[in-house]
Amino acid sequence: MTRPFNFSAGPATLPEDVLQQAASEMLDWHGSGMGVMEMSHRGKEFISIAQQAEADLREILSVPANYKILFMQGGALAENALLPMNLSRGGRTDYVITGSWSQKSAKEARKYCDVHIAATNEGDTHTTLPAYGSWQLSKDAAYVHVCSNETIHGVEMHALPDLKALGSDAPLVIDCSSHLASRPLDWSRVAVAYGGAQKNIGPSGLTLVIIRDDLLGRALPITPSAFDYQTVANNESMFNTPPTYAWYIAGLVFQWIKRQRESTPAGDLVGLAAIEARNVAKATLLYDYIDASGFYVNKVARDCRSRMNIPFFLHNEALNDAFLAGAKEAGLLQLKGHKSVGGMRASIYNAMPLAGVQALVDYMTHFAKTHG
Amino acid sequence: MTRPFNFSAGPATLPEDVLQQAASEMLDWHGSGMGVMEMSHRGKEFISIAQQAEADLREILSVPANYKILFMQGGALAENALLPMNLSRGGRTDYVITGSWSQKSAKEARKYCDVHIAATNEGDTHTTLPAYGSWQLSKDAAYVHVCSNETIHGVEMHALPDLKALGSDAPLVIDCSSHLASRPLDWSRVAVAYGGAQKNIGPSGLTLVIIRDDLLGRALPITPSAFDYQTVANNESMFNTPPTYAWYIAGLVFQWIKRQRESTPAGDLVGLAAIEARNVAKATLLYDYIDASGFYVNKVARDCRSRMNIPFFLHNEALNDAFLAGAKEAGLLQLKGHKSVGGMRASIYNAMPLAGVQALVDYMTHFAKTHG
Repeated sequence: MTRPFNFSAGPATLPEDVLQQAASEMLDWHGSGMGVMEMSHRGKEFISIAQQAEADLREILSVPANYKILFMQGGALAENALLPMNLSRGGRTDYVITGSWSQKSAKEARKYCDVHIAATNEGDTHTTLPAYGSWQLSKDAAYVHVCSNETIHGVEMHALPDLKALGSDAPLVIDCSSHLASRPLDWSRVAVAYGGAQKNIGPSGLTLVIIRDDLLGRALPITPSAFDYQTVANNESMFNTPPTYAWYIAGLVFQWIKRQRESTPAGDLVGLAAIEARNVAKATLLYDYIDASGFYVNKVARDCRSRMNIPFFLHNEALNDAFLAGAKEAGLLQLKGHKSVGGMRASIYNAMPLAGVQALVDYMTHFAKTHG
Repeated sequence: MTRPFNFSAGPATLPEDVLQQAASEMLDWHGSGMGVMEMSHRGKEFISIAQQAEADLREILSVPANYKILFMQGGALAENALLPMNLSRGGRTDYVITGSWSQKSAKEARKYCDVHIAATNEGDTHTTLPAYGSWQLSKDAAYVHVCSNETIHGVEMHALPDLKALGSDAPLVIDCSSHLASRPLDWSRVAVAYGGAQKNIGPSGLTLVIIRDDLLGRALPITPSAFDYQTVANNESMFNTPPTYAWYIAGLVFQWIKRQRESTPAGDLVGLAAIEARNVAKATLLYDYIDASGFYVNKVARDCRSRMNIPFFLHNEALNDAFLAGAKEAGLLQLKGHKSVGGMRASIYNAMPLAGVQALVDYMTHFAKTHG
């Protein structure tokens, strides 16, 4: 079976292996007589699924033992409120603006704390990243918040800032919804990483929060118990009924990541290293083609281009509809850009194979030739 | 294929038809080239799924046009906070205590408003319902909250209270997680109905809130935007990325409900009427057997016994483990009672066929004979 290539920004394409396994286990998981959707979250079957998924993610991302992994609900948009509820203590916080998502985060946080904008790339219409050395960090911030990949504007922080070197003792919080599990994370720099699962990890409705345990227990009294990080951690993410099926699919994706192999000139890579190498190869293929084409353009500065979300424009925007219609015919889906930016966007998360990006480049080449 | 009967209190058994359809559509929904998990929530494919599900639920429950149906996240436990955030205005609210779930609701609400306990069945260890005429309702409550089916204690309000007749002008809010879509609702008495989906409707991770539209727009400023009923309503439940797959499964369940037929002495019933007649028949079969057995006991007063969750005890509790082990061998799963109550519990939601309850009664009869 050949499926079209789906470039949706999220919910997004998933590995066929994962979908096939999920379909085959739908009515009976491992001889239990129940599908995963039908299991009590407190039964031994689901507990084993949940624990395996957590252990696999911990292994894949090398999450240190003093970090808790929370399986929550509401997505990154809910976390925009839940994070300051849990961590700000109502005091000063630093936010760095790099695109739509960090803007939304800062705006929502103002309900709960004193938000200081430490840096912004608004002057460059979100096509650059403010140099780390230019950030105006507060002396007493409860945390510093960044969106390390802007899904809409296509800007990614490939190396995360070292806040200590920048003169701040605050913990770094990253909204990494759209690069989570696409590359390793440097936990010596990150105190909290959160993201919706619907990009690289699984279906929507699951939010991952990975948090250093000394930051638990700071929630404002108004924090709903179901969203209090300490309460969630104390109950192994089962204070309320978790999104069990999304958790299970995430677990299948983690096992898929662990199985990946990639042969490179530098040797054979396994797991997340293989995934990252493939993501670099995919992004390089597409950016290099766009830059050389003369027909398409990506406006983001080269050193901060996202590997995951690649917005691009046709120089002749009158051809947009024809481009999208032809793409769909060629089996290339969901390439329309976000309405706030326009143009096109190719989201090429972990589950998008190199062949999918190659098919896109082939189509773009053909389209440019026939419409140039 | 014959599957065991699964009496889990939630997440719970789902119709086989639904699971089979979901499995068959996992990699390609209706020729779209995408599975439902992989679709953008803003694409025409998922929008059509979402709108159909809402329309079907509206039809099944005869939800009036001036009520909004919100597809949210966090379950009823999160709603315990989100409801007073959205409706209390920080003022007086009335709560009726009938078991663990209403206790939790009242406790959480105290963070946000002045909670008055209008009635309680604690004196009867939650085996009765306080007579509606005995409720001490406030003059100025923002709302009156009840849990119309207590999943743990097995108490159900079969007819909802008419607050106006009881001298209150407040809107009635019901947590109906465990009977939602199992019977009709009288919207002349209900202003807000909410519940987790993982009982009668679908997988966990989806919360339904059905709310009269004049109650929107009252949220406290501290309400997270993603959980502000007005914001959710204004955005057709897509302010944040909704739990798309759970929404889809809920939609398949709604279509399954609409397809149900039941022949009764009173004539042929269709849809929710058929479901309700079957639920009455299932509960009657089990309660009648328990009451007549002399071996098992259900302690709930007859007029307020739940049709959905039937806790029962063996007179000789030393036999509990043998009962559960034999049940599992007989293909009857997840019958252990909630840890706070002990004994057994059979949850017999919509998707549990009469044959499942008959199999349980047959097993209970056999067990009583061989251990009596």
